[in-house]
Parts: sequence; structure tokens; C-alpha cells
Amino acid sequence: MAPNPLHTNTNHEKEHWMKMFLPILFLCSVFFSSSYAAVQDFCVADLSAPFGPAGYSCKKPATVTVNDFVFSGLGASGNTSNLIKAAVTPAFDAQFPGVNGLGVSLARIDLAKGGVIPMHTHPGASEVLIVIEGSICAGFIDSANKVYFRSLAKGDIMVFPQGLLHFQVNAGKSPALAFASFSSANPGLQILDFALFANNLPSELIEKTTFLDDAQVKKLKKVLGGTG
Amino acid sequence: MAPNPLHTNTNHEKEHWMKMFLPILFLCSVFFSSSYAAVQDFCVADLSAPFGPAGYSCKKPATVTVNDFVFSGLGASGNTSNLIKAAVTPAFDAQFPGVNGLGVSLARIDLAKGGVIPMHTHPGASEVLIVIEGSICAGFIDSANKVYFRSLAKGDIMVFPQGLLHFQVNAGKSPALAFASFSSANPGLQILDFALFANNLPSELIEKTTFLDDAQVKKLKKVLGGTG
Amino acid sequence: MAPNPLHTNTNHEKEHWMKMFLPILFLCSVFFSSSYAAVQDFCVADLSAPFGPAGYSCKKPATVTVNDFVFSGLGASGNTSNLIKAAVTPAFDAQFPGVNGLGVSLARIDLAKGGVIPMHTHPGASEVLIVIEGSICAGFIDSANKVYFRSLAKGDIMVFPQGLLHFQVNAGKSPALAFASFSSANPGLQILDFALFANNLPSELIEKTTFLDDAQVKKLKKVLGGTG
Amino acid sequence: MAPNPLHTNTNHEKEHWMKMFLPILFLCSVFFSSSYAAVQDFCVADLSAPFGPAGYSCKKPATVTVNDFVFSGLGASGNTSNLIKAAVTPAFDAQFPGVNGLGVSLARIDLAKGGVIPMHTHPGASEVLIVIEGSICAGFIDSANKVYFRSLAKGDIMVFPQGLLHFQVNAGKSPALAFASFSSANPGLQILDFALFANNLPSELIEKTTFLDDAQVKKLKKVLGGTG
Amino acid sequence: MAPNPLHTNTNHEKEHWMKMFLPILFLCSVFFSSSYAAVQDFCVADLSAPFGPAGYSCKKPATVTVNDFVFSGLGASGNTSNLIKAAVTPAFDAQFPGVNGLGVSLARIDLAKGGVIPMHTHPGASEVLIVIEGSICAGFIDSANKVYFRSLAKGDIMVFPQGLLHFQVNAGKSPALAFASFSSANPGLQILDFALFANNLPSELIEKTTFLDDAQVKKLKKVLGGTG
Amino acid sequence: MAPNPLHTNTNHEKEHWMKMFLPILFLCSVFFSSSYAAVQDFCVADLSAPFGPAGYSCKKPATVTVNDFVFSGLGASGNTSNLIKAAVTPAFDAQFPGVNGLGVSLARIDLAKGGVIPMHTHPGASEVLIVIEGSICAGFIDSANKVYFRSLAKGDIMVFPQGLLHFQVNAGKSPALAFASFSSANPGLQILDFALFANNLPSELIEKTTFLDDAQVKKLKKVLGGTG
Repeated sequence: MAPNPLHTNTNHEKEHWMKMFLPILFLCSVFFSSSYAAVQDFCVADLSAPFGPAGYSCKKPATVTVNDFVFSGLGASGNTSNLIKAAVTPAFDAQFPGVNGLGVSLARIDLAKGGVIPMHTHPGASEVLIVIEGSICAGFIDSANKVYFRSLAKGDIMVFPQGLLHFQVNAGKSPALAFASFSSANPGLQILDFALFANNLPSELIEKTTFLDDAQVKKLKKVLGGTG
Repeated sequence: MAPNPLHTNTNHEKEHWMKMFLPILFLCSVFFSSSYAAVQDFCVADLSAPFGPAGYSCKKPATVTVNDFVFSGLGASGNTSNLIKAAVTPAFDAQFPGVNGLGVSLARIDLAKGGVIPMHTHPGASEVLIVIEGSICAGFIDSANKVYFRSLAKGDIMVFPQGLLHFQVNAGKSPALAFASFSSANPGLQILDFALFANNLPSELIEKTTFLDDAQVKKLKKVLGGTG
Repeated sequence: MAPNPLHTNTNHEKEHWMKMFLPILFLCSVFFSSSYAAVQDFCVADLSAPFGPAGYSCKKPATVTVNDFVFSGLGASGNTSNLIKAAVTPAFDAQFPGVNGLGVSLARIDLAKGGVIPMHTHPGASEVLIVIEGSICAGFIDSANKVYFRSLAKGDIMVFPQGLLHFQVNAGKSPALAFASFSSANPGLQILDFALFANNLPSELIEKTTFLDDAQVKKLKKVLGGTG
Repeated sequence: MAPNPLHTNTNHEKEHWMKMFLPILFLCSVFFSSSYAAVQDFCVADLSAPFGPAGYSCKKPATVTVNDFVFSGLGASGNTSNLIKAAVTPAFDAQFPGVNGLGVSLARIDLAKGGVIPMHTHPGASEVLIVIEGSICAGFIDSANKVYFRSLAKGDIMVFPQGLLHFQVNAGKSPALAFASFSSANPGLQILDFALFANNLPSELIEKTTFLDDAQVKKLKKVLGGTG
Repeated sequence: MAPNPLHTNTNHEKEHWMKMFLPILFLCSVFFSSSYAAVQDFCVADLSAPFGPAGYSCKKPATVTVNDFVFSGLGASGNTSNLIKAAVTPAFDAQFPGVNGLGVSLARIDLAKGGVIPMHTHPGASEVLIVIEGSICAGFIDSANKVYFRSLAKGDIMVFPQGLLHFQVNAGKSPALAFASFSSANPGLQILDFALFANNLPSELIEKTTFLDDAQVKKLKKVLGGTG
Repeated sequence: MAPNPLHTNTNHEKEHWMKMFLPILFLCSVFFSSSYAAVQDFCVADLSAPFGPAGYSCKKPATVTVNDFVFSGLGASGNTSNLIKAAVTPAFDAQFPGVNGLGVSLARIDLAKGGVIPMHTHPGASEVLIVIEGSICAGFIDSANKVYFRSLAKGDIMVFPQGLLHFQVNAGKSPALAFASFSSANPGLQILDFALFANNLPSELIEKTTFLDDAQVKKLKKVLGGTG
């Protein structure tokens, strides 16, 4: 093969190359123009445009900046001064438009001492949890009703397969911090107690379909603001 | 671990919980607000908005009601007073917007005595047929030209892999009823005879590409309304 | 274009065609040999071979018959002489190997008078239910805790999006029969009460993560065979 | 930021770097060892191992060479001395194991003067055809029975959406050559006439489900070797 | 089974069939009307409408013609009078709207004598290259840094797995022509030198993250028009 | 509807329920038996069994324990005493079999002061990075050669779309720690310098396809152990 034509270092040659490269730049700009409308590299969500089964419409690439790909909302602790002594802060596509269509998202989990992320599912994603501070007792239950739970130390990670009931409890004497990553830009979140008791699903139907006692149902409905 | 803080039944405690729970409800409403725009749980088709390769645009979640998820159009028998003595009634995304993006749809199949669902394919889905009444002779042909056909009794189910030619014939002495479920919200349907003879594809091209006789092609074109 | 070379009906010509067609048959058998090992048309599950994230290994195509694509196990009513007065009979890939890899499966649902399919999710599929006999009160709850439920008459269909809690209750005075079709050959099934109370998940953890009373948890554990 | 530590050209410094780089190489080899078993980059088909819905099992990466990714079988014209005066030579996963799992494959299409690729579908892929020599009349029919056909000149490309009936005919006075690329490593191929007439599907069933005359069916069965 | 009702050839019978078929045509048009809005068969890109993660919005089916499925832009050689003596002409969804959503696209590659397609990746697709004229030295590097390269003769095909660095060099004494097919309608294209040196990425960052010398970086920036 | 049949607390009633529930338990165990072989909930990798395009074969569910879903290998800092002053510790499917088939994985990134994760791509996944300690300058380049880079503070997250060149540099005066989550259980990793200079790709080919000077190529080959 011939010697590399770019082995050159005089000014004269540089000018020569510049001229030679104009056609490349033309080729290049051909790709630019087609890439410009490309939907493949990324699709930053335009939250005000129509959305479909695969996600939100994309912002026009020309208006996208690095800030569309950065989110700072997970930097501060969520407010854990509540009954569950815990907070979940999502960075899903609705909060972090840069992940739209990319099949991945995050959430921050703060657990004060005694804090609990109640039994819940993500209908649309698997989750990997990483413990940053403290220790967390985490578990899930599979379709065969087999239970998998364990205490996780700082640095441990645990995976929760898609759609299965799972929970996290601060198992230690200090606050815990964890991040959850998901296999979807919009994993969804269905918290069992809110799904059952924080809406207008009639108590009789809840009781019939969960075998819970009427008193139990009504007690939790009162606490969680449910009616019916 | 500490005793469950919800073991409580006095009014005083309830008020206490209510107060304690306000932060939860706040947390909860944070999720609400983000879920509200969520594209993951479902995407009821807005048939008047743009649609893309993954399906129709979604109706705004706030306007969705239970009726978007229910379809009553399969409740009555299709009209089988026709030559094939059969009727197919689809509940695909165009008829039943609630299935848009969910990867599943249904159709109702009515076969009078002697009725036939002619040779056809679904370009975009596999099908499982369930026989509700009567008996049906059903079959398909694979890419290796091997034939799979059998008589199905009431309650039998049969699967037809995606894109392969298949058919159903009422094999009994009474009307038959079946439902077909599909692995897509829009399986498509290409009926062989309509594809060949109910349009303006020139007879010569048909004959060249199917080896059918000219008289045969012209006879079926006349019956099915084809030209050319 | 030339006249169709298949316009021919004498014996002599037939012999001629037979000879002419040998090369086609050769072409054809080339495709046969490659199709023979094809993994695309279908993949009937070999339940005794390794399985992976996309499903079971395939039976060798040469051993596949029409009976691999037919399943008769949904023809008879499940036994509803139990507490929930209901039975679910699945035709997933483990029962009906013909659907393996095809993205669709079925189940039969029998509900005696007063029968209930308790609150449950399918972690891996959306569901469309069709009511064949009787009337059914069915509903689901979304990630925003909004409830969608309605009475379904014979012939009505309802869709339950993937991973969301849902239920079916016989709403009438006679037995009900329904079929559920799923967007996966293995939708999974997590029944809420069995997940919580039919295993060894410690009561204290259940109570902490569901806010249920200790007495309630222990009562249901006893009934459902749970320990801990 | 500090100056680039690799700005160095004395032998002494090179030795220094070599020593410094050992930890990198260690890091690197950690990635190597894990990549070695990786299933992501590629999955050259092991045609003798189990296969599943997503394709064949992979050859062990250590045994893979560049020749697994190259296929020379499309270099020569197929034999067009047959009735259709045409030949299709596939490079699907069964012939070209390197494409297994990569979602793309090719085929070579030779059309002698008057040659025809008969009406057919690919149940598992869309196709893009590129005309290399000659001119080809190509077309397809959609689910709404609308016909799309046109003469293609050398250099023209045409796309045939997944699962739809399509055909190619040499429209010129010289041989034509084309390549078809597919959106799957195993697109499948169902040639209409072979599916109907080259097997043991009973004539009566064919006639009932295609409306073809008995004489037509029997004539084509005789030619194509069908029975029944 | 009854004799085929289409065995008929008198005018009287034809009229009879015509009348009998009206209900079919009605059935048929029911399918037509629903198919008309169908998103499944194809989705010709409307480049001026919103686009999402799965591709562009679809043109209304009624306005689609055969010309939407044909592209003639690959018929002529690209201009290879440039430094790399090569040209790539894409037929991705932005140039060829008919492939939108169909998971396949093409590009034409012209290599003058000594021509080079520089090291690059397609972030969103695997590629199969077919050599039409001349001979090409092509290769790729996998995640384990193993190199796969070889000389390809006319008619050879080679597959480049998704996202991996690869290149093509004219290895012969005459011009070469090849076509590349991709497993996506929008494979993307990242040319290494343009990504590093044809933009405003600061030289210091390039040097730190590529170990290239400052002089090398600045020389190529000058040639390719980069700043910083 | 009838009162909830589980409102009961006498021993007698409990025995009654136990008896009544036997049929449920039977139903339940029917589901158990089918779920047992289920491939849907999860698929813990059996690294010694065949693997295919969708991932590794699954361990038998009966042998799976909670420890299959937990990984502790990210708990300790990687060794950053190397030239790049950085370490990447993966928890992909090959290291953490529990994520096999679930579409998500993690890696730990340690950056000493001055540490650099060199320019690289993940051919099979998008990445979201979260900064746990220190500050990181991170960036990527898209198919249109547009550069996106920024300094990230503790708690910031940034997304890198699939297949694009990107890098991370410790931008602060103290060590930095980050975790990367991926949209695949096996994202792959191609480090630019290792791909170009740590193997036997001939220098002449590298120079021809990257425009790098011969001296530059040979210098880096020496450092990184490349030959040719």
C-alpha cells in the first residue's frame, strides 16, 4: 500500500491538503445534512409534542445542547420527613428528557433510619439497585411465590426482574442512600398500598380480590385518602 | 425491626397518621405528576394524530376512561350471508384503540355451515385460534412447504406462526365460532385471492408470477372485481 | 411479455413440464435444506433442552407435527370447587410448546357464581380478556393509582396493560367463562395474596412494606400456608 | 489540565511507560477476559448446537476467525436453466453463520432473459432489492390489496415491507442481476406456488380456500410434484 | 366437503357469483377501511412531521405510491475526487423515506484506486458489505481488541457487527464498487477522524482521552477544520 | 356482592378455610409447576451452557437463590495506580449472571486525581453516569460530529447514547467515583486506543484509515503492546 498521504508538515503541504479536503468536507456535510434529521443517535423528548408507544417525540436536533443530556435533580436528598421515612426521586423521561428512547433511566432512593420503600412493582422495567450509604434489606417475590431477600451493604448491587413485587427497608442505624437504574426510560411505578387504598376502588371489590378484612381495608383507605 | 407503625385504631392515632401521611401524599403526587405524562403503562390510540412505526400517538392520559379499554364490537355475529359463508370482525388498534402499543389484539370469526376463511397471512403477527362453537379444519404451510392441518373441536386452540399462509374451514354440520388472538395490535391481513384478483395487477403479471392459467385469472378477477 | 408457459393441458406437455421443472425442484430443495434448520418460521419448545432469555430451545423441525401447534387442555372447565370459586388454566409455552417464541399465548378462566380471580399481575405481558359466558366485573389500576373497572357482558373484551394489578369477579348469577390472550408466550403470573402470604417472607417485613396489621398478615398466612 | 503524559520519545521514557502501563494492561485484560465470553458483539452460529427463538447458539469466541464473517457463495451466478429462468442464492444464517443474531442478511437473484421470481413472501423480514445489471419489473401488494409495481433500472433500489406478497420479473432483453438485503438473519421464504401445489395439501382444501378450479389445482400439482 | 362453488363458467353463473360476492366485497371493504389507517404494513416517512424513538411519522397511506418505495439515488457513482478517493452515498430513511420503520437500509460505496473509507462505526446497526467491482480490504475490531480483516474479491460479502470500528480500503489496481446493507433504517455513521478533529472538542481533552500527541491533533484539526 | 368469606377468626373457621383452600392450593401448585420452568421472570446466566444472540442459557430455577441476584464486586475501589489513573469494574452478565436477559447492568468507575477513562464506545447499550464523589468532565460526540461535554458535579447524571464515542476525565483536585448504568446486560466496551494500538492491525492500515502519522502509530503501539 502507498504511504499515508497525511505524512506532511510544511505549510505549503497543509494548504494543499486543505484544498484537497474540500471534497471530503463536502462529503462530510452530506452526511451532516442527513444525520441532522437522524432519529437514531438520540431522541431528546419534546414533552409538549405528541407521544407514542415508543416514547415522546424528539426535539429538533439543532436545538439540542449538552444540558439536555445532564440532570441535576438527583443531587439532593429527597424529603424523608414522612411516614415511610423515605423518598424516591425519579429521573425518568418525563423528568430527564435526554433518556427518551434510550432504554435506561435512574432514580434516587433516600431512606432515613427506619425508612421503607413499600412493596411495589415497575410494570415496564427491570431494576438494579446500588447501595451508596448505609445498609438496606431488599427483596422480591417471583411468579412461583418464591421469596428472595437479603441485607445489602454499601457497594452491593441487587437486581429486581421486571414486573415483580419488591421492597427496600433501611436495615441499619443510620440513613441509607441508593440509586436504582432501570432498563427503560419510563419504568412505571405501582406502589401496592397506593394502588389498593389511595383511590376510589370500592372496598367490597378490594376485599373480594385481596381477601383482606373490611376493617383493614377501611383503615388503610382512611390513612391513604381512598374513598369507596 | 420495630412493630408496624400502622397497628393503630383510635381516632387520635388516625388524625396523627393523616398528618404524618401528608408528606407521603406529597411524594405520591410527585409520582402522579410524572406518571401523568407517562407513555409506559398504556397508550390509547388517538386515531386523528400522527402515527409512526410503533403505532398511533397516545390520547392524553387525563382523558382516558375505562371505556377506552373495553370493546363490544365482537359481541354479535358477523354477517355470514355471503359467498364464503363467513365473517371476520377485527378488534385491532384501528377499531379498539386501547390495544395500541400493547402487542396484542383479537378478532371474531364466524363460519356458517360450509363457511371458509380463505387462504391468508398476517404479515405482522402470530395468531392463536380458539374454537368456541362447532368444529373447524385449520391449517398452515411453512417456508419449507410442509403442511400442518387438522380438525379442531370446541375448546381446541391452534397457533399459526407469523407471516405464513393459513386457512380455516367449518368442518362440521353446524355454525362455528372462534376467536383469534394476535401478537400485535395491528397484525395486518392479506387474503390471497383479494391480493391477486381484487385490484389492478395486470393479468399477465399474475400469470407469470403464479403460473395460473389466463382463464382462471380472468374468471376470478371478474368475480372479485379486479381489472387489468 | 410472453404468454404464460403453463397454458398447457396435453399429456405430452405435462411430461415436458415435469422435465423442465426438475431444475426448479432443485432450486426448491435448496431452499428446503436451508429452511429445514430455519429458526424463523417457528420454534416449538423442547422443554428438556437449555432455555434462554428469549425462550426455550427449538425442537428439530423434522420432528414437528401439526399436533405441536394444537392444544386441547383449554377444552374442559377448570375445577372451581375451591374458595375463590374460580380456576385459571394456562396455555403458556410450558404447557403449549408451539407458542414458544411467537409472542402470544392463552389461558382459560372459569368463574363459578361468586367466583373471583384475585388481584394479580402478569410481569411479562399485556392481556386481552374475552367474555364467552356470563358477566364479569373486571378492572385494573395504573401507575398513577387511577382505577379502571367495569362490568363486561358476554362478547365484551377488555385489555389490561402489562404489569398492572388487575382482577376479575363473576358479577352475575350464573357461571362465567372467559379466555385471556397475552402478548407473550410466557406472561408470568403473580397473584398478590400468594406472593405475600403463601411463602416464608417474614411477617414483620410484610407489615413494614404493606402497612397491613400483624393480625391480618398472620390470618392470611395461616390460610394460605405461609410461614415466618 | 496537565500536559499529555504520552508526549515522550526517549527510550528511557518508553521503558518507563511500559512499566506504567502494566496496570493498564491488567485492566485491559480484565476487560478482555470478560469480553471473551461476551454475547453482545456478535454470535457466529454454531449450526450443530441448540437454537432458540432468537437464533442459533454462538460459536465460542476464541474459535472465531475473520472467515466466519465472510461468505463467498454469492459470487457466482445461480443456475437459471430452469422453468422460471431464475435462481435465488441465500446468504441467511444457515448458509452464512456470521450474520446470526445481527438482524441482517443477503441473497443473490439471477434472472435470465424472461426469468421470474414467482409471487412469494418473507414471513420474517422486510427486503430491499438493488438492481446490479439489467432491468426488473418488481411489485408488492399490501394488506389493503393496493398494488405497487414498477420497472427498476440498474442502480435502482426498492423496498418490500415485511410479510407482503411480492415478485420480480426480468423486464429486459438481457439477463438481470440483483441483490436483496433483509432485516433479519433468517427472513424465511414462502413461494406461493410451492406452498399451494408442492406438498400434500388436499386439492379440495386448496380449492375451497383459494377459489381455484379443480383442473387448475391438479395441473399445477402435477407440475410441482404435489399429491392429494 | 362440498365441491368448490367456484367451478363455474357460464355467464349466468358469473352473474350469480357477482351477486353472491357483494357481501364479501362488503366484508372486504370493512378490512380495507381498517387497513387504510393501518400502521403495520409500512410507514413511509413524512419528514416534515414529528418523529420519535422508533422513526418518523408515517405519510397517510392514501397518498403513498410505488415511487415512495423506490430510490434511484444509488445509481450513479459518488464523487471520489477527494482526499480519501472515496464516496459513500446513503439510502437511509432521511433519503429514502420508504424504509422508515422497516429495519433495513442501504448505502453505495465508491472507491477510486487507492480509495479509503476511514475507520468508523454505525452506532445503530450491523452492516453487510457486498463487493460488486474490484477488490476491497475490509476489517473490524471487536470489544476484546481482536482484529478481523481480509481482502474481499468481487462477489464476496462481509458482515460488520453493530457499533464496532471498521474500515474499507480499495486493495486493487482499479476502482471498486460495493453496497452496504444495514439492520436499521437509520444506522448512523460516526467517522473517527471527523468525530475527533472536525469540531470544537478542545485539543487538550482529545490528547488526554486518546493519548495522541499535541502536534498530531493540531495537524489533523487543521486539515479537517476543527477548532479548539 | 357477598361479604368477604375471609372475615373469620375462630379456630373452627380456620380449619374450615384450610379445607376450603385445599383446592386453591392445588390451583396454586398447578401454577407453581408451570412457573417452575418459566423463562420469563428472570434467567440467571449459566456461564457454562450454550449462549445465543439474546444472552446466556438460564440456570434451572430450582437452583437459583437470592445470592444470584446480588453482586458485591463493585464495593471496593478498582486499582487506579496505572497510567490512566483510573479503573473500570464491570457488573455485566459475565460477572453478574443475575442480570442476564434483563436489559440492564452496571459498572463502577474510579478516577484518581488526573484520572481518565479514555475515548470509547459501548456498541450495545446507552449509558447513564452518576457522579458519587468528586467532579468529572464528561462528553460525547454524535454522528453529525457535534460535541457535547460538560463538567459534572457530585449527584449529576449524564446520558451517553448508544454506540457514540465518549470519555470521562477527573476534573477536580480529589479522587472521583461514579457508577455507570447500561441499557443492556452486556453493553460491550471498545476503548479507542486499545482497538487501534493494542493488537496486530498493521500500522499501514491504521495510518491509511485514521490519517495518523506513522511515528504516532508506532509510538502508541509500543506503549500499548501492539504489533504489525
